[in-house]
Amino acid sequence: MNLKLCAVFLMPLLAAAHGSKPPLTLETQGSFFIGGDKKTITQPGFGPIPTQQGDITINQMYVQYQIPKKAGRHLPVVMIHGCCLSGKTWETTPDGREGWSEYFLRKGRAVYLVDQVARARSGFDPTALNEVRLGAAPPSQMPVVVAATHQVAWSVFRFGPRFGEVFPDQKFPMQALEEFYKQLVPDLNGFLPQESNPTWSRLAELGAQLNGAILMGHSQSGFFPQRAALLDSRGVKAMISIEPLCEGDLSPQHIATLAKIPTLIMFGDHLGDVVEGPTHWPDAFARCSSFLDRLRDAGGDATMLHLPALGLKGNSHMLMQDSNSEQLADLVIAWIDRRKK
Amino acid sequence: MNLKLCAVFLMPLLAAAHGSKPPLTLETQGSFFIGGDKKTITQPGFGPIPTQQGDITINQMYVQYQIPKKAGRHLPVVMIHGCCLSGKTWETTPDGREGWSEYFLRKGRAVYLVDQVARARSGFDPTALNEVRLGAAPPSQMPVVVAATHQVAWSVFRFGPRFGEVFPDQKFPMQALEEFYKQLVPDLNGFLPQESNPTWSRLAELGAQLNGAILMGHSQSGFFPQRAALLDSRGVKAMISIEPLCEGDLSPQHIATLAKIPTLIMFGDHLGDVVEGPTHWPDAFARCSSFLDRLRDAGGDATMLHLPALGLKGNSHMLMQDSNSEQLADLVIAWIDRRKK
Repeated sequence: MNLKLCAVFLMPLLAAAHGSKPPLTLETQGSFFIGGDKKTITQPGFGPIPTQQGDITINQMYVQYQIPKKAGRHLPVVMIHGCCLSGKTWETTPDGREGWSEYFLRKGRAVYLVDQVARARSGFDPTALNEVRLGAAPPSQMPVVVAATHQVAWSVFRFGPRFGEVFPDQKFPMQALEEFYKQLVPDLNGFLPQESNPTWSRLAELGAQLNGAILMGHSQSGFFPQRAALLDSRGVKAMISIEPLCEGDLSPQHIATLAKIPTLIMFGDHLGDVVEGPTHWPDAFARCSSFLDRLRDAGGDATMLHLPALGLKGNSHMLMQDSNSEQLADLVIAWIDRRKK
Repeated sequence: MNLKLCAVFLMPLLAAAHGSKPPLTLETQGSFFIGGDKKTITQPGFGPIPTQQGDITINQMYVQYQIPKKAGRHLPVVMIHGCCLSGKTWETTPDGREGWSEYFLRKGRAVYLVDQVARARSGFDPTALNEVRLGAAPPSQMPVVVAATHQVAWSVFRFGPRFGEVFPDQKFPMQALEEFYKQLVPDLNGFLPQESNPTWSRLAELGAQLNGAILMGHSQSGFFPQRAALLDSRGVKAMISIEPLCEGDLSPQHIATLAKIPTLIMFGDHLGDVVEGPTHWPDAFARCSSFLDRLRDAGGDATMLHLPALGLKGNSHMLMQDSNSEQLADLVIAWIDRRKK
């Protein structure tokens, strides 16, 4: 598909889709950062500035928020994007429909959209790149900057069994695929400490600052609500995981902590139907099912919404952008609201 | 200053500052991309995925927009951030006041906030990094990833004569300096073709898609409105440059094209008072003054607002975040509105 033609084609669609909704009244909106550490680095020279030592701030997490009028009755929802994506995930869909961030807002929820630490507006620590540039470290020590190629995305996001072939009941707006590819940004999580991604503690801190929030992760960040709660569960009032990978090596103590917090996991369709490229979804689903079993065994409130089991067919990995995204948001919101009774 | 304490301190400030404004009613909001090119790359292996060739999309520009009720009378305003910053520049100030994006919205203007190509949610082309990682290019060929250190920022943003020393009449909210440092993200513009930064054509395309817009750049992007107009002036209805560097080597033909579009340049205080670090502002001011002279000689409508000359003292390079930011926004808006008569 010609990209330029595609953009020209999409703009009217976009206007039309958004124009059909009533105006949106916000109590307030804004953006801020959570966390941030000072670090002294050696910076290669550029322009008139010679190679020099200096301080930078790293590991801060960017948060953009909107609070609708009369949000008081509902807990705020923090939305966290997945691999190779940014906070854009939850905004306008590739085909120009309203995203979950705005939809939740219309349902009276305050929405906090984050860019993971080391991604997008949160910035990243360039030290590993500087050191290679300056000859202080060999290129082989440079962490891999992961860009999801179109081919890998096709498999991981489950557009079809193999690249170029689409599942007949596909709910992802494939006509706007080129727009979706633009959402993919290089992922520098490999630059972060692997034993404890700073995004986890930032999310816990955000929840605590909000005096309680619902954390909702997706894919790579699908288990971040749990990771945040294990560091500090005070502000984590519910954990929603959209197609998470789930971790299998949790101790009974971990499970006891997590079982105190209502947990929802949602999976789409065709988990085992991808035959080319990374095909880790059946394993992830099995791990997540076991995780929920362990929570329930420990007295937890744990729900799996496997969409095909509910009769909803053809959903991709990008549930929040699929053609039935609002129906799926309603399922999530209904689950949240049932927890209040 | 302790960063954690700072965050805890700022949250109530933030809520208080935003809480004092009336609710904001939007006709619509959303986000999309302009442009994007397909590129085949060799991606180093990561996790279960081996080293492989694949396609990625590069050079797309992320745009976030909000349209207030009854914006029809006014031209939309496109805001473009500077070096080592992102679209965050125009949002909530470091000390929690409303940013220019929201302020312009309250004044009835549709606002389009972009992340420059190769920055933040626009992503970047990782090819140059991949090639070094794979041994296909020497480290010395890797473009410099520019992180503005606190020390360089102090000089360039004119917080004081030398690092740690503040101008007595400083209007930047220095009590929130640590929050400001979190806005600084690595700048990968060195990865882009230097003869024509793709952001320029994206801005021209955005202006054309909007059937006319006011382009407003800052610092590194201060001259981007002009660069966009020189590529395609159809959609560029006014050019506002907040502390631009200005380019000196424009042909008479360039000047003739630009002289047809109303031009405003705004500069703050202490341009020549920084004695340590990069001190390029007096030269930039001189270049910009000559540029405006050339526009006027060609019959153009060209205005310099040098704030100290208007009796406004102590403004930093971050005019849109200074304590008198709303007063400065009013000056810009008044200039825009006078152009309609």
